[in-house]
Amino acid sequence: MNRVREAVTVIGLGSMGSALAAALLDQGHPTTVWNRTPGRADALLAKGATLAADPAQAVAASGLTIICVLDYDAMYGILGPAAAVLEGKTLVNLTSGSPEQAHEATAWAERHGAAYLDGAIMTTPPGVGSPGTMFLYSGEAALLEAHRPALAALGDPLHLGTDPGLASLHDVALLGLMWSTFTGWLHGTSVVTAQGTDATAFTRVALRWLTTVAGFMTTYAPQVDAGRYPGDDATIDVQIAAIDHLIHAAAARGVDNALPELLKATMLRARTAGHGSDSYASVVEVLKKPESAK
Amino acid sequence: MNRVREAVTVIGLGSMGSALAAALLDQGHPTTVWNRTPGRADALLAKGATLAADPAQAVAASGLTIICVLDYDAMYGILGPAAAVLEGKTLVNLTSGSPEQAHEATAWAERHGAAYLDGAIMTTPPGVGSPGTMFLYSGEAALLEAHRPALAALGDPLHLGTDPGLASLHDVALLGLMWSTFTGWLHGTSVVTAQGTDATAFTRVALRWLTTVAGFMTTYAPQVDAGRYPGDDATIDVQIAAIDHLIHAAAARGVDNALPELLKATMLRARTAGHGSDSYASVVEVLKKPESAK
Repeated sequence: MNRVREAVTVIGLGSMGSALAAALLDQGHPTTVWNRTPGRADALLAKGATLAADPAQAVAASGLTIICVLDYDAMYGILGPAAAVLEGKTLVNLTSGSPEQAHEATAWAERHGAAYLDGAIMTTPPGVGSPGTMFLYSGEAALLEAHRPALAALGDPLHLGTDPGLASLHDVALLGLMWSTFTGWLHGTSVVTAQGTDATAFTRVALRWLTTVAGFMTTYAPQVDAGRYPGDDATIDVQIAAIDHLIHAAAARGVDNALPELLKATMLRARTAGHGSDSYASVVEVLKKPESAK
Repeated sequence: MNRVREAVTVIGLGSMGSALAAALLDQGHPTTVWNRTPGRADALLAKGATLAADPAQAVAASGLTIICVLDYDAMYGILGPAAAVLEGKTLVNLTSGSPEQAHEATAWAERHGAAYLDGAIMTTPPGVGSPGTMFLYSGEAALLEAHRPALAALGDPLHLGTDPGLASLHDVALLGLMWSTFTGWLHGTSVVTAQGTDATAFTRVALRWLTTVAGFMTTYAPQVDAGRYPGDDATIDVQIAAIDHLIHAAAARGVDNALPELLKATMLRARTAGHGSDSYASVVEVLKKPESAK
């Protein structure tokens, strides 16, 4: 079996689905594709893909079907009519959705005799096929292992747990980290570009700084797990003093301060909760206890 | 001259000042120290430092004086009585402050015949002395070059420009990026830990993800400089749709949503400004035009 590449079906040929099918073809997997608009398949057919006439034929063609469409409703619309051929197959769903939708889809697949993995793709289409790109999966670990070679053609498959909602939960949590990081970076960019530094030069420094920030996160993560946050040289009190410098510098340059004002308010809540001498990681305590829930 | 280490004076022996003096001693620099509370110097004296009797004697002992104290007022309080001996000396100020304070200090040093560099230390004390740690400087480039070997003992010296306010401006902009990143990470941590994943496991994934995020920042920085934000596969419209998944998942787990709600509101302002099909980098346009200024 070692040298035989598993046959894979890819349903949904938007820019992401097309990138998935192309990565499989690049690794020599016999790949069957289907898309509502058949024209989308042309480039893949030129690379050796087989076009299925309908979703049932597509699912029947391979033991493993990967689906990546607009949303879960689109998935049910496509796979519903093909449900009879799902029996004994494995369905890997890379469509974006919520943890609740992943649970429902697991039950739906089970009712049709199919094994199901829920997944999330942590890149844009050009990043598909790179071994450094994370693909998050949740569901039965054995299922991921059984299909690891094919899934590894897409990126690095990480198994997060058997709870099928974990992939989409991590997906949104990581996107939240991304938007926060982007917005903090763009706020800083607005401040320094107002003084004549260009964004590219600032970003070079910002990316080096992110390495230091990552080091703090590595230190802080076990603090969160332990529920104890030794402040050492970087306490909440010290950072509350420092953020006023940012707010004043930004205001003086006409930059929107909603983000740093919110960060300061969050730090002040942490201080009020008794974390003034603790590290920034203690902010997790106030995030877990929303203002409105008090 | 090559093998002779420049004599350096360090004023202020809090945990950061002590780390600076220790790094200089480690690199063989003849180091004179002074602190308002002399007991703080003991460990440094054991490493070979010389204790000055007062700030004037400290400044007189070396061509280069590095000061790191609580704030600019503390600096003037210490150096004011020593101003007569500043003539012909170089003063490097690593005290945290605002760009305006850096400008004032440059003028103050000039009045006393001293050359002045303003700096910012992008680490906590344990990171001092590591060649990867960034030290930001602004002021005359030639001054940094003249003292580069000594300053390189502290970390990697980066010259940001002649405007003396640039180091502290970058300092606060980078701290803003750090707080945003931390808070986004802690929000995501709150969401996934509510579902049984521990913070340490999530952080491993988050740190890998930050590498991808950094890749986007590298792509987006020239977009900011050009004022054009091609959205390709990750438009503001797509991200507005995705952030609702995060908000719902967090709300269902009792996590505070002030941060993602602000991020969503900011994206909606970008869409309203015509950036729905643009990349996230276009958010810089709304940050540069505060709501209150409309």
